[in-house]
Amino acid sequence: MSNSAEGSNPAEGARTVVVERVFPHSPEKLWRALTERPLIAQWLMDNDFEPVTGRKFQFRHEPMPNWNGVVDCEVLIVDPLKRLSYSWGSLGLDSVVLFTLTPAEGGTHVRMEQSGFRPDQQQAYGGAKYGWKNFFDGLERVVAGLQ
Amino acid sequence: MSNSAEGSNPAEGARTVVVERVFPHSPEKLWRALTERPLIAQWLMDNDFEPVTGRKFQFRHEPMPNWNGVVDCEVLIVDPLKRLSYSWGSLGLDSVVLFTLTPAEGGTHVRMEQSGFRPDQQQAYGGAKYGWKNFFDGLERVVAGLQ
Repeated sequence: MSNSAEGSNPAEGARTVVVERVFPHSPEKLWRALTERPLIAQWLMDNDFEPVTGRKFQFRHEPMPNWNGVVDCEVLIVDPLKRLSYSWGSLGLDSVVLFTLTPAEGGTHVRMEQSGFRPDQQQAYGGAKYGWKNFFDGLERVVAGLQ
Repeated sequence: MSNSAEGSNPAEGARTVVVERVFPHSPEKLWRALTERPLIAQWLMDNDFEPVTGRKFQFRHEPMPNWNGVVDCEVLIVDPLKRLSYSWGSLGLDSVVLFTLTPAEGGTHVRMEQSGFRPDQQQAYGGAKYGWKNFFDGLERVVAGLQ
């Protein structure tokens, strides 16, 4: 049910994190968890997200001694039940997150791709690989609790 | 009971975060909370700290999409009941943390100074200002629970 991959873009030297999983739930429930502010807060972070292309929003984590906890984002794609994308900027990381939902046997295949890691952003890249797996675990719990 | 300040070093353009608080507890209890691994984990982060000068250790936070959650440290000063210092390196931040304990009326004055923020590390600097206040709140809870 769980898988992850990683790739590189030789042209620019940028790297991409991919996390994929089939959730035993409908695309409608996944879409709700990806786009409704209180649900996003349960599995990702506090936020002022709105599913409107061009809208700027933030994720907010508890501040740390090396991070103010703020992620600056802008909604790039809102294609209901199919694709959601936003920019993800924090601590010098200027990346793009793209979720793709596809109906699959037994549920919905969710693919998360975060692109834009520079070769010198190894700590961010490593964080993303494990961070998104943790987030997907939380997403699974949130979706399982939806009526 | 709580206070914080910030300063700058004009010579190098580096900035320092200072957080100070008088805790209604003995220096012995504060020292334990600052130097015993399971206690540190309760208010700061999981760690493999040892109170031995020159010892390298890590703090480990849950990974995030822009941070692998690792802080690389080295113990610099262990002056029991008085001073504790270690380096704090993460996400390009190369800083030094210094705790100073002083007996005060009603308890122990604890001063935390984290130095080495470059002018372009505004996100880390902002994180440290708020992060250490949160950590001190946790430290207060941990010390209050000590016998």
